[in-house]
Amino acid sequence: MSHPAELTRFRDTDTAGQGTGGPLPWPAGQVTLAQARGERSLTALFRAALADVSTPEPPPVPAGGRLTWTTGTFTPEPPFWPDGDIGRLAVCATVNALAAQGARPLALSLTAVVEAGLPLERLRALSTSVRESLAEAEVPLGGFDLGVVRTGEADQLYLTATGTGLLPAAATTAPARPGDRLWLTGPLGNHGTHLLATRHQLGYEQLIHARLRPLTGLFTRLHRGHPEALRGIRPVSTGGLAATLTALAEETGLSPAVDPDLLPLAPDTQLAMSALGLEPWTTASEPTHLVVAAPDPALEATLDRHTPEGAATLIGTLREPPAATLPEHPVLLCPAGQPPEALVLPTAPPPARQT
Amino acid sequence: MSHPAELTRFRDTDTAGQGTGGPLPWPAGQVTLAQARGERSLTALFRAALADVSTPEPPPVPAGGRLTWTTGTFTPEPPFWPDGDIGRLAVCATVNALAAQGARPLALSLTAVVEAGLPLERLRALSTSVRESLAEAEVPLGGFDLGVVRTGEADQLYLTATGTGLLPAAATTAPARPGDRLWLTGPLGNHGTHLLATRHQLGYEQLIHARLRPLTGLFTRLHRGHPEALRGIRPVSTGGLAATLTALAEETGLSPAVDPDLLPLAPDTQLAMSALGLEPWTTASEPTHLVVAAPDPALEATLDRHTPEGAATLIGTLREPPAATLPEHPVLLCPAGQPPEALVLPTAPPPARQT
Repeated sequence: MSHPAELTRFRDTDTAGQGTGGPLPWPAGQVTLAQARGERSLTALFRAALADVSTPEPPPVPAGGRLTWTTGTFTPEPPFWPDGDIGRLAVCATVNALAAQGARPLALSLTAVVEAGLPLERLRALSTSVRESLAEAEVPLGGFDLGVVRTGEADQLYLTATGTGLLPAAATTAPARPGDRLWLTGPLGNHGTHLLATRHQLGYEQLIHARLRPLTGLFTRLHRGHPEALRGIRPVSTGGLAATLTALAEETGLSPAVDPDLLPLAPDTQLAMSALGLEPWTTASEPTHLVVAAPDPALEATLDRHTPEGAATLIGTLREPPAATLPEHPVLLCPAGQPPEALVLPTAPPPARQT
Repeated sequence: MSHPAELTRFRDTDTAGQGTGGPLPWPAGQVTLAQARGERSLTALFRAALADVSTPEPPPVPAGGRLTWTTGTFTPEPPFWPDGDIGRLAVCATVNALAAQGARPLALSLTAVVEAGLPLERLRALSTSVRESLAEAEVPLGGFDLGVVRTGEADQLYLTATGTGLLPAAATTAPARPGDRLWLTGPLGNHGTHLLATRHQLGYEQLIHARLRPLTGLFTRLHRGHPEALRGIRPVSTGGLAATLTALAEETGLSPAVDPDLLPLAPDTQLAMSALGLEPWTTASEPTHLVVAAPDPALEATLDRHTPEGAATLIGTLREPPAATLPEHPVLLCPAGQPPEALVLPTAPPPARQT
């Protein structure tokens, strides 16, 4: 404890902002450990940059319904890529996870762990990306916190996001049944291919775009407009379509039967995946989702009209599992005019950290 | 794409659990990248371990009130210490942050970023600690997600927590005014000292305990029982008491006047802090909070009766800022019988990452 005679105000150790009262200016240079703390820290800079998309004050509780939460960890490598970044990924994935289950997103809370030495320009770009993605999704920021760790202790930066959503008072979708159709809302493999190509600077990233986006509009229309026909909406993220279909098979007790020739794989993407050693079945495909629905012209018209990529792709149907001595229900490959076979993937694990 | 004739079910690449339907067993060994994914991944193991403290289904929206969120990043070094760990820290800090503002915690969402190579035993211990802390705080888990990064890319593990809370329909506390009293709910410096001693294995960690705990009981009693006298409750965390008092001065326009001889610093703690080069004013002191309240016998009786450490400590009062050519309001040191002086701290930043 020191007791000097001079009346001097305690100053926090950070020097990131000037405290002018206006929008805090982003400093130049690199993230430092000292900037983790204090009222003009990077957390404060980030919060100021996101002020106009934040909940202005605690919002009143909605009348009726149920609360639900979704939470995710985002460690993509690299964290920045030509047509998006980790911030857009965290916002879109979290908002879409809520909307996919029929919930209205009420707020999204974000945290970042940043390694010292990261150029501050990167953080500024991240704040812009988060801001634009939240505005596009029309979801307010509920809170933000940032921690700085020593250089080399985090791979540039990690984000986590927690979304709070409002579900209707009762569940609206019916269980899946044989004959339900399987639709993809976008192309397969683009996200994982774009990121891996960016990581290795192979040039494919200029041809194949990830195009992350909020799909709240489409999902809300499907849930509210077609509750009789809609069975569920699932992301095609880490683990790829194989993981999505396997989870569907295990949870419904039915076999997804997919025609591999119908998969929405652009020739450029196929070429790049082959060169990169990526397997279409296991490659992350954000923001593509699998929509499971009974055959229904009205729902299919909504899918056609409101799917951002232009139109959804019918890739197969749900079937009763085949009579076979299998412990659980397989994912079936059903090329036109040929007998069904089970999907078997190479045993080697896919490249780690696609997303 | 492969089309073998044999009907074989797609297996995810992880091998962490056996899928017996019962509680998932924790495997031995170390965290691997492959365990980040799939239905029997570490995320699934963790969720299973926390199932009985999780929201069983989306809870109905409370009738009336306002929603609030608090979010934090936890990167303590080390992440495990003799009387607690990063999980207990994340749960207690988040729950206490909600309760301190008068909100009832509705749910807490957690994420972990874990580096490959971490002993799985550590993660199992973490899940136990999180489980016990949530049960003690009587707050359900809203969601959990875990990401694995390559060895060396994260310093063992980081946690983030987001809490959703329910505030009353209108704010209940009045603004602070001169004459309000400043109370500490626990000792100063124990948490930071315990952690730094643990990091350097100096032995002090056996004498000085951090004793993190949920303080929802005390804070709820203060908010509900004494809304007329209570002005606010603030944590004494990263940045220490100096940061807490400085923020109080800036937000109220008043000067916290503290008698340094009244600070609750145990002799053992003072000795250890001196040996470790820690400054009592800037050392993290979780779970100690600063309570600002008008002089009020009823509130002070509640503080005495329900403060877990035995009794709260009166350390000073709020004053009109002194007439001086200061740009902002100082924190004043007022030893008994001496003229007040402003708190001035050493210019060197405190050791990074105390919490």
